[in-house]
Amino acid sequence: MSNLTGKTGIAVRNIERADPTLIDELTRYGVATVHEAQGRKGLLACDIRPVQRDIAMSGSAVTVLVAPGDNWMFHVAVELCQPGDVLVVAPSSPCTDGFFGDLLATSLQARGVRGLIIDAGVRDTRTLREMGFHVWSRAIHAQGTIKETLGSVNIPVICAGQLVNPGDVVLADDDGVVVVRREELPHVIDSSRKRADLEEQKRLRLATGELGLDIYNMRGRLAEKGLRYVDRVEQLED
Amino acid sequence: MSNLTGKTGIAVRNIERADPTLIDELTRYGVATVHEAQGRKGLLACDIRPVQRDIAMSGSAVTVLVAPGDNWMFHVAVELCQPGDVLVVAPSSPCTDGFFGDLLATSLQARGVRGLIIDAGVRDTRTLREMGFHVWSRAIHAQGTIKETLGSVNIPVICAGQLVNPGDVVLADDDGVVVVRREELPHVIDSSRKRADLEEQKRLRLATGELGLDIYNMRGRLAEKGLRYVDRVEQLED
Amino acid sequence: MSNLTGKTGIAVRNIERADPTLIDELTRYGVATVHEAQGRKGLLACDIRPVQRDIAMSGSAVTVLVAPGDNWMFHVAVELCQPGDVLVVAPSSPCTDGFFGDLLATSLQARGVRGLIIDAGVRDTRTLREMGFHVWSRAIHAQGTIKETLGSVNIPVICAGQLVNPGDVVLADDDGVVVVRREELPHVIDSSRKRADLEEQKRLRLATGELGLDIYNMRGRLAEKGLRYVDRVEQLED
Amino acid sequence: MSNLTGKTGIAVRNIERADPTLIDELTRYGVATVHEAQGRKGLLACDIRPVQRDIAMSGSAVTVLVAPGDNWMFHVAVELCQPGDVLVVAPSSPCTDGFFGDLLATSLQARGVRGLIIDAGVRDTRTLREMGFHVWSRAIHAQGTIKETLGSVNIPVICAGQLVNPGDVVLADDDGVVVVRREELPHVIDSSRKRADLEEQKRLRLATGELGLDIYNMRGRLAEKGLRYVDRVEQLED
Amino acid sequence: MSNLTGKTGIAVRNIERADPTLIDELTRYGVATVHEAQGRKGLLACDIRPVQRDIAMSGSAVTVLVAPGDNWMFHVAVELCQPGDVLVVAPSSPCTDGFFGDLLATSLQARGVRGLIIDAGVRDTRTLREMGFHVWSRAIHAQGTIKETLGSVNIPVICAGQLVNPGDVVLADDDGVVVVRREELPHVIDSSRKRADLEEQKRLRLATGELGLDIYNMRGRLAEKGLRYVDRVEQLED
Amino acid sequence: MSNLTGKTGIAVRNIERADPTLIDELTRYGVATVHEAQGRKGLLACDIRPVQRDIAMSGSAVTVLVAPGDNWMFHVAVELCQPGDVLVVAPSSPCTDGFFGDLLATSLQARGVRGLIIDAGVRDTRTLREMGFHVWSRAIHAQGTIKETLGSVNIPVICAGQLVNPGDVVLADDDGVVVVRREELPHVIDSSRKRADLEEQKRLRLATGELGLDIYNMRGRLAEKGLRYVDRVEQLED
Repeated sequence: MSNLTGKTGIAVRNIERADPTLIDELTRYGVATVHEAQGRKGLLACDIRPVQRDIAMSGSAVTVLVAPGDNWMFHVAVELCQPGDVLVVAPSSPCTDGFFGDLLATSLQARGVRGLIIDAGVRDTRTLREMGFHVWSRAIHAQGTIKETLGSVNIPVICAGQLVNPGDVVLADDDGVVVVRREELPHVIDSSRKRADLEEQKRLRLATGELGLDIYNMRGRLAEKGLRYVDRVEQLED
Repeated sequence: MSNLTGKTGIAVRNIERADPTLIDELTRYGVATVHEAQGRKGLLACDIRPVQRDIAMSGSAVTVLVAPGDNWMFHVAVELCQPGDVLVVAPSSPCTDGFFGDLLATSLQARGVRGLIIDAGVRDTRTLREMGFHVWSRAIHAQGTIKETLGSVNIPVICAGQLVNPGDVVLADDDGVVVVRREELPHVIDSSRKRADLEEQKRLRLATGELGLDIYNMRGRLAEKGLRYVDRVEQLED
Repeated sequence: MSNLTGKTGIAVRNIERADPTLIDELTRYGVATVHEAQGRKGLLACDIRPVQRDIAMSGSAVTVLVAPGDNWMFHVAVELCQPGDVLVVAPSSPCTDGFFGDLLATSLQARGVRGLIIDAGVRDTRTLREMGFHVWSRAIHAQGTIKETLGSVNIPVICAGQLVNPGDVVLADDDGVVVVRREELPHVIDSSRKRADLEEQKRLRLATGELGLDIYNMRGRLAEKGLRYVDRVEQLED
Repeated sequence: MSNLTGKTGIAVRNIERADPTLIDELTRYGVATVHEAQGRKGLLACDIRPVQRDIAMSGSAVTVLVAPGDNWMFHVAVELCQPGDVLVVAPSSPCTDGFFGDLLATSLQARGVRGLIIDAGVRDTRTLREMGFHVWSRAIHAQGTIKETLGSVNIPVICAGQLVNPGDVVLADDDGVVVVRREELPHVIDSSRKRADLEEQKRLRLATGELGLDIYNMRGRLAEKGLRYVDRVEQLED
Repeated sequence: MSNLTGKTGIAVRNIERADPTLIDELTRYGVATVHEAQGRKGLLACDIRPVQRDIAMSGSAVTVLVAPGDNWMFHVAVELCQPGDVLVVAPSSPCTDGFFGDLLATSLQARGVRGLIIDAGVRDTRTLREMGFHVWSRAIHAQGTIKETLGSVNIPVICAGQLVNPGDVVLADDDGVVVVRREELPHVIDSSRKRADLEEQKRLRLATGELGLDIYNMRGRLAEKGLRYVDRVEQLED
Repeated sequence: MSNLTGKTGIAVRNIERADPTLIDELTRYGVATVHEAQGRKGLLACDIRPVQRDIAMSGSAVTVLVAPGDNWMFHVAVELCQPGDVLVVAPSSPCTDGFFGDLLATSLQARGVRGLIIDAGVRDTRTLREMGFHVWSRAIHAQGTIKETLGSVNIPVICAGQLVNPGDVVLADDDGVVVVRREELPHVIDSSRKRADLEEQKRLRLATGELGLDIYNMRGRLAEKGLRYVDRVEQLED
């Protein structure tokens, strides 16, 4: 279906969503952990930053393709959302305008939508924080948008350098945003759990002062690559 | 007077200021609302960000044109400020140096100045927050400046992409900064009030789950533009 | 020793460190003050920003040169750290990957390391804040790194535009990061103290409304440079 | 197959390619025309710039996913190329290193590959121009890369904000790079031809001084939207 | 009239233009010289770059305010242009879309317009160079625009950080773009001529090896500021 | 001597220079080759770009530290230059002003200086190209500078992320700029020659269609790392 990417004038009513229990479980693990657990793919560009702090959120992606400076399709998207969804919005050309503010947030919150990931700007950020509607965006900008040009809802979009299909699962926290393919979620949850467990064990050992050099058995390979220890820099004949 | 823009070596002692009651009323409305209410003009570039959070501020612009890396004219400006003013500072070429810190803030605060909008860098940001002196800037940078080159005070300046005349009114919050022409303030206040009232009504309807599609009567126009709904993406024969 | 800059495959075990009492005293003064006090040198580029707020930190630099996207040398560095150290990390080419997260922070904290300055990305920022491990970085990015390529530990590095030698003292706060040469620390402390005292005196005068124009005796020199006061802008014949 | 995006360790030997005659015909039309002709989709970000001037190139995409700072997969890709191909390379995290130089160009040229589109850096640009090997890149940077980490060849990649499937057709000129889905090529050629013909007719009329306002019949709609002509600006009562 | 800045829905038919002989004379002097000659004001931001090389151009500004991603107003502007004009275009929020290509260039060229200055993107750059239609822009981008939203023609605009009034004179070359107020042109020509003459005299002296230190009599002031010459760096006790 | 970095008010008259024959030989090899040959160190940031094309230049660095927006120290530097030198200029805080134009170029050319590397802006670029004075810079900007603040000449500077000592050798071409320590030049020339010879041999083999996979014997290591070849993408069970 990837030849739908970038196509305008389409609104898909029904999408497959992942198991809500698994979606919720995802927030137990950080974006960094999940990104590792699925083989280091699916991470959005680091320019997408939260407008709030110390919040993690997961949900089913309802994807929205918008024209630059035009937020008309948000209204089409709202109707197609379900509780537990997250709006994932990509403009068809780069734009920092404030596509989204407290009115749309009110509307989405009324439908149980958890938050917004947008590769563009938002506004009313103080109110968004007060409402507890969570947003990750490229910019904060009061510049408004118009309602003249069609985009699409629930087709595959490229958001901040990553392909997001409708129904894919997104996880966002202070470190950024990662997308998990819907069909891979059970496997990714599983790997994330294992990875988190392993990390917890390592954390305990590291906390006692044990060295990563020893835990990961790195000394041999470092020597092999040619690492040279000297006691003092003066020993280095330049 | 626009041929004064960028001219150095001038300090204008007296400027017209807007009605203080109206200036204060402006903070009831967000930057996004006011920007819309005056026809989407006057918004500074979104690179200008607050150094504090959840604060709104308005005031009469005392404009300062500075040479890059030179903050001498701040001292000239202080003397020309009155309670309720806001310093609006633009460098004559791009610069992220820290032109402004806690000493100048102390001096301005002593004169009743409310804050600073600067298309350049500031420093001592922790102290500025503690003092309650509000700042919007392009950068935070400890790099100091010198006092060698004249600029001007109270001439029209271009700050972050917008023309600001001395005595224009600036409003700043978490979303950015907007400038309102002094003579247009009563009208802008009026439009902002109406707009805020309308938004409040819409918010109430949206909060109950009513759709923007229906409130704004968008379905017909979307259909006319060619929006095509499908139940499932498989229905799209590519 | 500057021909060591950028050289890979070296780990220097022992470095000279400055007097811990002086290092601690440095945090009494802000980065801006210390930067001024040592003649405006040693300030890292303003792209290096704290992941926490309202924190100041100082320490002895343990320098780490890393390959882009490769955090192997962090593990070599941990072993060479002592209580009171700060890791200063520079990649050999620009990179925003998340080189550092909570596990390495745990390990460094176990050895008494105070924090990290890195001209690249970090992750697990929420946990880092909870742990009280202080970080200044160029980016926040969940993107992980590999362990394949040697860098160096405790050689001179260029970090965010400044040369940092192992054992130099770094001071970081909300305004950024400044490096002080180890051998210059006593002198810089001294100058900082004097500067801070002077500033305190000026602050008291400014707080009462006295003008910088008078305190610094600027009026004559401004006039000499040609500053022209007019009462109203209309007096300026264009 | 979009869940392959970002997956490492795969090399696909055979891909479907479009009709070579059609691929070649594409260069008759500019990137701007083709982008319009296919409904304004498929355009790579404008940061991807040619290292030569006044050259247009088309070809079948052989896609390469690389680790940041690691060009190992180029060598895997060379073997899988055919005459008429174009390498399309995307790093798994942002990187400006010089992944590609004259040796790899020699190797690709020996196999009939036409050029390179890369969302990263290249080097030896003067030699590349002399060789007539055409390159569009994000950066020019002499910084070399290593050969330690697997990527993939001929899986879907996101390159400069666009999904590129192996076998898709890319067209590049001074204006940038556009990707055309393999299966849509005949239709896009057709639309491009029609569009170019129409544009030629319009060009002839415009060249004689006829106005777009009349050719496109815009005056009515402008008036309807409220455009207000005044003879002189003084007529505008503000 | 500066309260017109940013106002949409206006097209002013007639503007005052400067003396064509003087406008043409301006191209004898470089942008750098003219910028100095008028007291270092009026220089557009250095992000505005020529799409051709080794060309200088001057003309009367016909100003155009456009909505982001919308080039409708270009067509309104064409009709209001005269031979010798230059279009100066500013978007109401930042945008890199390709607002302008060879068709509009054909139309403008038919009316004797000399070129385009635009704080946004253009396309068809190869054809533009072949046509000899000169362009300075922020970006080159094949991304097209729509025709839905009104802007204005011949009101004051902020273009790349500078106020440009309709009828102001713009000069552009490889170094960038400078705007000269219409009413100041005779004076600026005069100053530029004097400056150029002086520079020519200095060039002759410098070319023979005479030093700027002596020509400008700098040695005393350098010594006064504390410049300290040493024969060898070893003489500096650190 | 690295504690001199950033120190102002010093001009060192005499510096050690490398053997002119070796300096000239360096231009036989590209920046990319020399960077590799000295172990991938010394490469300036890729933001430093040539203002001309297809030119390579080498020379002894005369280093200049300047205040932002102040080019006074250029005049001090001219007198200290010798034929074969290259000016390497770094501002003490980031600045894109045009520090350098045709007059200074005339003066330097009269003394046999070959060119300029500057981490800031230049102007008069068309004339510079006509004169054959070669320049690599961060920006092209007509914005002039003042002469008020001391910097230093011939102390170590950080230029575009690299430490450059006076007398170090710089090599610049279309790919960027690399610095070679003076005392390491003979060794680097030697390694570059060997590397270039090896590359030439490889080029001949690659030009005949031999694969890098075989020349570099990569197949085994790729397999070991887990690279998996499939004939067609359908064979990948997802």
